[in-house]
Amino acid sequence: MKFSNLHLPTLKEAPKDAEIPSHELLVRGGYIRKEAAGVYSYLPLAVRVIRKIEDIIAEEMDAAGAQQVLLPTVQPAERWQESGRWEQYGPELLRFVDRKNTDFCYAPTAEELIVSLVRRDVQSYRQLPVNLYQIQTKFRDELRPRAGLMRGREFIMKDAYSFDVDDEAAGKTYDAMFTAYQRIFERCGLDYRPVEADTGAIGGSRSHEFQVLAETGEDRIVSCPSCGYTANVEKAELKRSTANPALEAQGEASSALVDTPGQKTIEDVASFLKVKKKQVLKAILFDSDKGVVMALIRGDHELNEFKLKSVLDAEWVELKTDGDFGPEGTRLFPGYMGPVGLPTGLPIRVVADDSVRGMADFVCGGNAPDKHYTGVNLGRDLALQETHDLRVAKNSDPCGRCGSKFRFFRGIEVGHVFFLGTKYSAPMNCTYLDQDGQTHPMVMGCYGIGVTRIMAAAIEQNHDQHGIQWPVPLAPYEVAVLALGIDNDELMGHATAIYDSLRKAGVEVVLDDRDVRPGGKFKDADLIGFPYQIVLGQRGLKEGVAEVKCRMSGERSSVSLETVAAHIAEQVQTGRHGISTQENK
Amino acid sequence: MKFSNLHLPTLKEAPKDAEIPSHELLVRGGYIRKEAAGVYSYLPLAVRVIRKIEDIIAEEMDAAGAQQVLLPTVQPAERWQESGRWEQYGPELLRFVDRKNTDFCYAPTAEELIVSLVRRDVQSYRQLPVNLYQIQTKFRDELRPRAGLMRGREFIMKDAYSFDVDDEAAGKTYDAMFTAYQRIFERCGLDYRPVEADTGAIGGSRSHEFQVLAETGEDRIVSCPSCGYTANVEKAELKRSTANPALEAQGEASSALVDTPGQKTIEDVASFLKVKKKQVLKAILFDSDKGVVMALIRGDHELNEFKLKSVLDAEWVELKTDGDFGPEGTRLFPGYMGPVGLPTGLPIRVVADDSVRGMADFVCGGNAPDKHYTGVNLGRDLALQETHDLRVAKNSDPCGRCGSKFRFFRGIEVGHVFFLGTKYSAPMNCTYLDQDGQTHPMVMGCYGIGVTRIMAAAIEQNHDQHGIQWPVPLAPYEVAVLALGIDNDELMGHATAIYDSLRKAGVEVVLDDRDVRPGGKFKDADLIGFPYQIVLGQRGLKEGVAEVKCRMSGERSSVSLETVAAHIAEQVQTGRHGISTQENK
Repeated sequence: MKFSNLHLPTLKEAPKDAEIPSHELLVRGGYIRKEAAGVYSYLPLAVRVIRKIEDIIAEEMDAAGAQQVLLPTVQPAERWQESGRWEQYGPELLRFVDRKNTDFCYAPTAEELIVSLVRRDVQSYRQLPVNLYQIQTKFRDELRPRAGLMRGREFIMKDAYSFDVDDEAAGKTYDAMFTAYQRIFERCGLDYRPVEADTGAIGGSRSHEFQVLAETGEDRIVSCPSCGYTANVEKAELKRSTANPALEAQGEASSALVDTPGQKTIEDVASFLKVKKKQVLKAILFDSDKGVVMALIRGDHELNEFKLKSVLDAEWVELKTDGDFGPEGTRLFPGYMGPVGLPTGLPIRVVADDSVRGMADFVCGGNAPDKHYTGVNLGRDLALQETHDLRVAKNSDPCGRCGSKFRFFRGIEVGHVFFLGTKYSAPMNCTYLDQDGQTHPMVMGCYGIGVTRIMAAAIEQNHDQHGIQWPVPLAPYEVAVLALGIDNDELMGHATAIYDSLRKAGVEVVLDDRDVRPGGKFKDADLIGFPYQIVLGQRGLKEGVAEVKCRMSGERSSVSLETVAAHIAEQVQTGRHGISTQENK
Repeated sequence: MKFSNLHLPTLKEAPKDAEIPSHELLVRGGYIRKEAAGVYSYLPLAVRVIRKIEDIIAEEMDAAGAQQVLLPTVQPAERWQESGRWEQYGPELLRFVDRKNTDFCYAPTAEELIVSLVRRDVQSYRQLPVNLYQIQTKFRDELRPRAGLMRGREFIMKDAYSFDVDDEAAGKTYDAMFTAYQRIFERCGLDYRPVEADTGAIGGSRSHEFQVLAETGEDRIVSCPSCGYTANVEKAELKRSTANPALEAQGEASSALVDTPGQKTIEDVASFLKVKKKQVLKAILFDSDKGVVMALIRGDHELNEFKLKSVLDAEWVELKTDGDFGPEGTRLFPGYMGPVGLPTGLPIRVVADDSVRGMADFVCGGNAPDKHYTGVNLGRDLALQETHDLRVAKNSDPCGRCGSKFRFFRGIEVGHVFFLGTKYSAPMNCTYLDQDGQTHPMVMGCYGIGVTRIMAAAIEQNHDQHGIQWPVPLAPYEVAVLALGIDNDELMGHATAIYDSLRKAGVEVVLDDRDVRPGGKFKDADLIGFPYQIVLGQRGLKEGVAEVKCRMSGERSSVSLETVAAHIAEQVQTGRHGISTQENK
């Protein structure tokens, strides 16, 4: 394609609402335009990227035995009422009525519809397994759409739903989808991690997120370089030392109750008393369906409510922001709470994170306004009733599986696989008859990939201050031929010959034939992110060479005009297979 | 693909609401399932057909210089208010509010959005022409969705919009799109006609419909086999003989006023008086902004209101169902009106279709209740003031361009090209600067193709009582290998070998490996509509042959097991190019 024929309006100015690089670069690079909050138009280059992502996904889903369907975006409320989600789903579900005043919604996901589709046509174990996917526009009416395509309202998603006879068969399907997802992200050329995840509101018992690693990612994950165990920081299990009181640290200071007027946070207290945060004990009060709990953790760590909930075997836990509870007159003082000198008889359970056992000569709340204890030591001043793994995992924490040091990453969730079980099939009567004529609910899984989100995540992972650095498999065009001097017939002759050779070799190439200064062509090529640039200038022409630049590595080399097309075609061919560096950048 | 792995639920019963073959066959053949009125899910086979149609469209649009974009389905009301269509569009526009109570609609078309997209980024004549298309889901809240995919509410449409500097350039783009559309429908293997069409509500000055010929089509068109002029019957121009009174027919009967009690319609009168319909004069009264008009036409012809409107140069014409008008006391009697013996002084203009001039000894209304004149003759009883081409074209009517006999067809509109001019660009300020710095509105065209409708239209054109007869380019799979006897290892060995050979040759093939009787396999293969069936039975096996059936022609032949795969692969290869028979079936 000649650049002059492309509808590719690059911009110098970043949009005012751009918070992250992908948003800025997609707008400036002529890929997307905003139509409303979280609603975008995709220009020709973006459509090319989207189609490539869709093709990779479809090929791998097909290869894994899934079959493509297409479900309506406008779905009758009736189905959503059957599952109960018509009521449960919040304002993110865009609801409306048609001209006959019948309730409909714009589908944010399609469990209900696929279940109703499958239960109509599948009755026998002989027809199972069935694994159906679609690549379809979704709408989620986010309260705060932001970050461009990262959290849009209208977006393209691949969603798959599998139906099996039992847990074992469903587990195999889950594994097959997991493997397909690995292939998909590898073929996209992205550095990613499959991450053990919470099943959350969607239910089910097994779940993995696929996270594209990027500094700007919202999600925090830890990964073990030894055993490969990777999890969201909130779910990641830490290696625990044996819970032996003898292992508790012992200090030498004597304890004292000191004035700490107005010092309520760990930061304030540490700074006021001139100690490190790790020497201050954090005590947090929670309400839960199992009663009131005081959770203790070292001041530089972060308490993990999911783990606390699990330790308590509670349905819910909630931060308790006031200190009033128990017998009248007894109370605790937020900012000055601690396990030492707790009023007796309070209905309170004290649980400590393992990290507390290593603390000595530490500071904790004085259980009186504007007071803290200093020089506190375990055993002497305080007996730990119970210690658990209660903290959010961090870089260098010990892996819960093998004990090696975790590495910390930020990630962008681009895929999610769920083992659903019978959460939808049971209430919606999606059943089959087994060999003996017995009825069972089908066992389901569901598997999502954010198509448009991959486009943004790929950029978050692959960009520099000049623009996008597309991995070859996702690039809208693989090569740009920059002709510097369109009035020079000889130069244009060579440029066109290289362009034609590349096209004949099946390479997707743009010839920058615009009447624009060299600087403008360089800038646009870097911004748009073509993986390879072939630069033809007057000087090179005299020497019979073109300059080749690899956008990702920044490497430049001079290649003879005769061989440059073949040389680049080979590089592109290799790059198309995708890469998986498995290394954080 | 093995049939046993396909999600392909064929049904014996037709859906109750099926009015036309494509609806019945798509449901029975396991292609679609209804989710709500006019809202369907597409099963795997349908998705394959849709993708093929989309690929053909995209390839030809790209080849014609158009570029693919993707616009949101959820569009802000703001844009539609700019063009005025937020108010003008009826209840077919699905409107709703988001969680912040902002007005949006589900796009039924995208003129507004594309104009706002282009005016932002295109300012100079240097950036023109621009021709952008998308293949995107649309929603039109039809009052009476029906006929399956033929008139659905949610459907897939390819819509393109072109922007040019002036009418001449826009005309060239229009021609390029016209040619691309011809290539698209040829490559789909469909018998179609480009038809001159009314520009209607969408405005603009030039318009063609692309009609797939099918007996069940809603649209009536005539086409001239000599000069190729093809038009909607309502628009089709007829060759007129010179309007010379001497050419008027003359009869011999004498006229009489006879009783025709209760006989109001042409059918009734003809039957009551035992004459042919063509001997009864039809007189129809219209109101219009140009006054009251009585239109005369031969009883077996159909009056064309579009032509009448044009003759009157009227803004509107409307059937006048009562006879009251003019000076008090004077009135006409519906069912008994005619040009003979009209009360004098009535403010009425009488216009006749050319067909009336050939009538002699004919019957017309008596202008009194229950009365008709018989034996009426022109000149003697009645002077024709003015005659025009006022009738709906029919089979064998003379072509308005060359005089040859028109052929009549029924068609299904699958594409439409419009020359829009500045209808949207002017009010929405979509302008460019020319070489001299002058501002002009861009000149637009728009070009639609109903993707899911093509699927239905292809079936309306290509089916028999047993099922679908897919043209090769649109078939979900090109070949079915029917293995009759899956317990026979030798037979299955041959079937699998043929299946594998075809796959290696790049043919899309299904192996029917189901444990189903031969009759069931034949029925399903015919119903689903695979273009070629390769049948392997016990008897053929003994003779070393397979039976090959071409679904479209019904031809059968025996081909040796060794060569059958190569033989069919070749046929498929040829069929993929599509055909255009240019002959009605």
